[in-house]
Amino acid sequence: MSSKTRKPIRKATSENRLADATLENLYRIFTIPESDESTLGRIEKAISQNVDGFLKQHIVATDQSPAELERGFKTARIPEDPIFVSEQAEFLLDKVVSQSVHTSSPTFIGHMTSALPYFMLPLSKMMIALNQNLVKIETSKAFTPLERQVIGMLHRLVYRQPERFYRSKIQDPRTALGVFCSNGTIANITSLWVALNRLFPKRKGFDGVAEEGLYTALETFGYRKAVILVSERGHYSLKKTANLLGIGKKNLIALPTDAKNRIRIDALTSAIKTIRAEQGAIIAVVGVAGTTETGNIDHLEQLADICASESIHFHVDAAWGGPTLFSRRYGKLLKGIERADSVTFDAHKQLYVPMGAGFALFKDETHLSLVEHHAEYIIRKGSRDLGRTTLEGSRPGMAMLVHSGLRIIGRKGYELLIDMGIEKAKVFAEMIDEASDFELITEPELNILTYRYIPASLKGKLPQLSPNEQRRLNEHLNRLTITIQKEQRDQGRSFVSRTTIRSPKYANQETTVFRVVLANPLTQIEHLNAVLEEQRAIAQKLMHADLKAYSEDMKAAARESIQTIKLRAAHS
Amino acid sequence: MSSKTRKPIRKATSENRLADATLENLYRIFTIPESDESTLGRIEKAISQNVDGFLKQHIVATDQSPAELERGFKTARIPEDPIFVSEQAEFLLDKVVSQSVHTSSPTFIGHMTSALPYFMLPLSKMMIALNQNLVKIETSKAFTPLERQVIGMLHRLVYRQPERFYRSKIQDPRTALGVFCSNGTIANITSLWVALNRLFPKRKGFDGVAEEGLYTALETFGYRKAVILVSERGHYSLKKTANLLGIGKKNLIALPTDAKNRIRIDALTSAIKTIRAEQGAIIAVVGVAGTTETGNIDHLEQLADICASESIHFHVDAAWGGPTLFSRRYGKLLKGIERADSVTFDAHKQLYVPMGAGFALFKDETHLSLVEHHAEYIIRKGSRDLGRTTLEGSRPGMAMLVHSGLRIIGRKGYELLIDMGIEKAKVFAEMIDEASDFELITEPELNILTYRYIPASLKGKLPQLSPNEQRRLNEHLNRLTITIQKEQRDQGRSFVSRTTIRSPKYANQETTVFRVVLANPLTQIEHLNAVLEEQRAIAQKLMHADLKAYSEDMKAAARESIQTIKLRAAHS
Repeated sequence: MSSKTRKPIRKATSENRLADATLENLYRIFTIPESDESTLGRIEKAISQNVDGFLKQHIVATDQSPAELERGFKTARIPEDPIFVSEQAEFLLDKVVSQSVHTSSPTFIGHMTSALPYFMLPLSKMMIALNQNLVKIETSKAFTPLERQVIGMLHRLVYRQPERFYRSKIQDPRTALGVFCSNGTIANITSLWVALNRLFPKRKGFDGVAEEGLYTALETFGYRKAVILVSERGHYSLKKTANLLGIGKKNLIALPTDAKNRIRIDALTSAIKTIRAEQGAIIAVVGVAGTTETGNIDHLEQLADICASESIHFHVDAAWGGPTLFSRRYGKLLKGIERADSVTFDAHKQLYVPMGAGFALFKDETHLSLVEHHAEYIIRKGSRDLGRTTLEGSRPGMAMLVHSGLRIIGRKGYELLIDMGIEKAKVFAEMIDEASDFELITEPELNILTYRYIPASLKGKLPQLSPNEQRRLNEHLNRLTITIQKEQRDQGRSFVSRTTIRSPKYANQETTVFRVVLANPLTQIEHLNAVLEEQRAIAQKLMHADLKAYSEDMKAAARESIQTIKLRAAHS
Repeated sequence: MSSKTRKPIRKATSENRLADATLENLYRIFTIPESDESTLGRIEKAISQNVDGFLKQHIVATDQSPAELERGFKTARIPEDPIFVSEQAEFLLDKVVSQSVHTSSPTFIGHMTSALPYFMLPLSKMMIALNQNLVKIETSKAFTPLERQVIGMLHRLVYRQPERFYRSKIQDPRTALGVFCSNGTIANITSLWVALNRLFPKRKGFDGVAEEGLYTALETFGYRKAVILVSERGHYSLKKTANLLGIGKKNLIALPTDAKNRIRIDALTSAIKTIRAEQGAIIAVVGVAGTTETGNIDHLEQLADICASESIHFHVDAAWGGPTLFSRRYGKLLKGIERADSVTFDAHKQLYVPMGAGFALFKDETHLSLVEHHAEYIIRKGSRDLGRTTLEGSRPGMAMLVHSGLRIIGRKGYELLIDMGIEKAKVFAEMIDEASDFELITEPELNILTYRYIPASLKGKLPQLSPNEQRRLNEHLNRLTITIQKEQRDQGRSFVSRTTIRSPKYANQETTVFRVVLANPLTQIEHLNAVLEEQRAIAQKLMHADLKAYSEDMKAAARESIQTIKLRAAHS
């Protein structure tokens, strides 16, 4: 070793000597682990031993107003000097953990985020410690074939190709059965991006839409616009997609649904005709397998038939419903999905993987090559780098967690989780139906349902009123639903979400409803009962005009509605 | 409680009794933690106590061919029955961890992924355990203002607005100083998506490009195309962006660079003129602050001047170089970035946060409203939901890790990390310059440099040869560089990446180089010396035609090159 190479990097000036103390601290955080006795060490231990207990103990149920909540996060100053890890750990416990959402609670049944299996925690830590970057094999090595395998497993769940298909394609870098995505939104965008490239491929004098852009593509192919068709229950990410891909949100055509929230086939066929007559290109028809708000499934087989005969790319958004395929009993609800050209599938929903894991799966293993891209230093042509066909760049090794879920829970385990959720939803629907003061708005087809509180004196009577009376009363009930939902959320013991849907029961009037998602295996009937009891108690307090307990804006919203509802109930 | 609500969810059929065993197992994984003595428990302990030791012990350095690597990941079958957590843990250790990349090794200096501070591990576990979804406040609560604060902190680092600006905007839901993104690619796409919407806003008879799409926008505004301008050193994600946004890859105009890899200002001004003359709309000029391959920084002030006078959106891709702003000494290299309309900033690079954390920052807090979107059940109008302006949907609470990094490392800590990296790169450049058999190709401006091996007999002589001779010899040296890089990678002790750039030194001939990124604070001069020694040894073995140790394809690539290089060296 020459003397040259031993030369120190920093000259010993006084300024540098000052920095040396910081330097030592810096090396410390990169080389010395947090001790078991440190604040962070103790937090970690508590999480490892009993995550639910940790969350119960540390998440404070009482409500803080947004303004109070925001008070601790107002400064934009990055501290000049480092603070101690323990100080930050205390801060996080005090200001963040305590005011976070207990998403794994069995009474948190309002959104699609629920409990995680315990083994996901140490495995996640392992994943973070390895800090691989899946964009290229040089920073991921075995994680690359692992991710390809996971994609292959889910592809097989959806497309059921023969074993030899997977044996030859699953690791063949010239093909791609799908791509890993950070979320379902990216999966939907990726799928429709591919669909757009299928519609405007290379031909003589035209280099393909990827190279030439949408304007030239439409001009070359003689179109005036390009559209995507979906039902009005389609996920809002599709609107974003239409915006992002440059076709414009107004060209995401949201078609009407039937009484079960499924796209109306007659509306679809007539829309296709109209669009073709208007010189419109159709990028894709999107079927929904598990609508976000009501958990319904489009007639996928009929959609597949139409797409086949019209030569349209058929995409299925199965971000929620995809894992239903594990169930022998309910999997058939998705019949036809195996004919989709592309499918969105989320692992951080019903595969019980931590946030950040979605997939776009493609029936034809060559379609992703339409959006392939390269660079000189990575994802070179002919390489094995997964980044060649992903919309995203750097990505963590989340595939390891999906792989572990699929193997540790297994097909039968997921089947049980799916079946339990659906059966629980059916029971809950009966409970609501039979209650004197709740009204089921949408029946559960999967594990999602919507309902609302309705005074016992009105239940049964409302459908018999004139359309005008129904409309007026429903408007008040909508406000009551909002008030109850907010109050329940703020009390912090349980949580349902709310949405507004057009109810066929009431001449498609906009109806605000409680929305319940039953995916947490720890949710029992007693929890569901407690949710109803709590809502009933809030409603009754409101009905008795005992509004003292409520915030000013709730009072204002509630007062008029309740008076009207009470009057109406008395008179009808 | 009525008898109704106590009714069991599943009827007791024999099939169900069989399932009950699985059910019990299922509850177990959701409710009982892995014990300390379990395989996974032991792995976690080892990681907690000494992550580097764990990785050193478990990552096997010896090379496996891709085919060998893939052998363990061929089946697409999801197991019917669950396997034990311990079995999966063993599998991961054996097949995945052992064959992963030791990205935190001080001799892994080829890519932008390096070591993580220890405290990131327990904090990540806490984040996973909380499993928040940042798309909406109902699943994230305090994480929402926390993320807004982190965005504000980085905004202030870049834009240095006065304290009162942040006090009023940082938590104001009607504004957005930026968005959190899973990676820099999403940040670049988001920034240019906003830029496109600025270019074609609503006006009489036109609803804005978001609603109407690119085709109608170009027609309405009287353009034939829309372009993005950047230097030929721009990141490949910009090409993806041009493809995705529908403007077409050929409308990402890659302009030539000067000897220091900076966009040529004369080329830019003349390109703007030409495009305007061709009825082209200019969506944005992209300046690069830290080119991926060479770590250079465009003349941001001059770009800002041009964009201001031409009324063009000015975006700066500072995914790599952004954190240089922490340094009082080197921060000024980015002068002008504070005039950018939008900036891409990655936290999983030089903020030392685990994979999956990027930002798009916007100077004007109203610009993100151009891409705002809503849904009935979440991200309602007027809500605080962060999902209103993100391209992505569900996202984890990574902001907590960025927040912790900024506070625990502090401004001075990051300054030291940045300064050390740049100074280390300068020392390494000197080492290469002074070596008889290495040639520096691009000088480090930040902490990235490129170089290659060149036989001592040729060094110094090559620049004096005729252009034709240079060309021929460089082609052979390119192949030699590839051979050495692959062999070093496969030996598994150290890693540099490689890329191909046009070297001004050799009449812009394509020159294949080793690329080194010096961001790991644990990398010492002795490690850099070891990297050179290893490359020298590989080269000398090759030069002595002792090719036995090499794989067949390496031999083929090396043999001819080496003969020619040796001959040429003898004759020149």
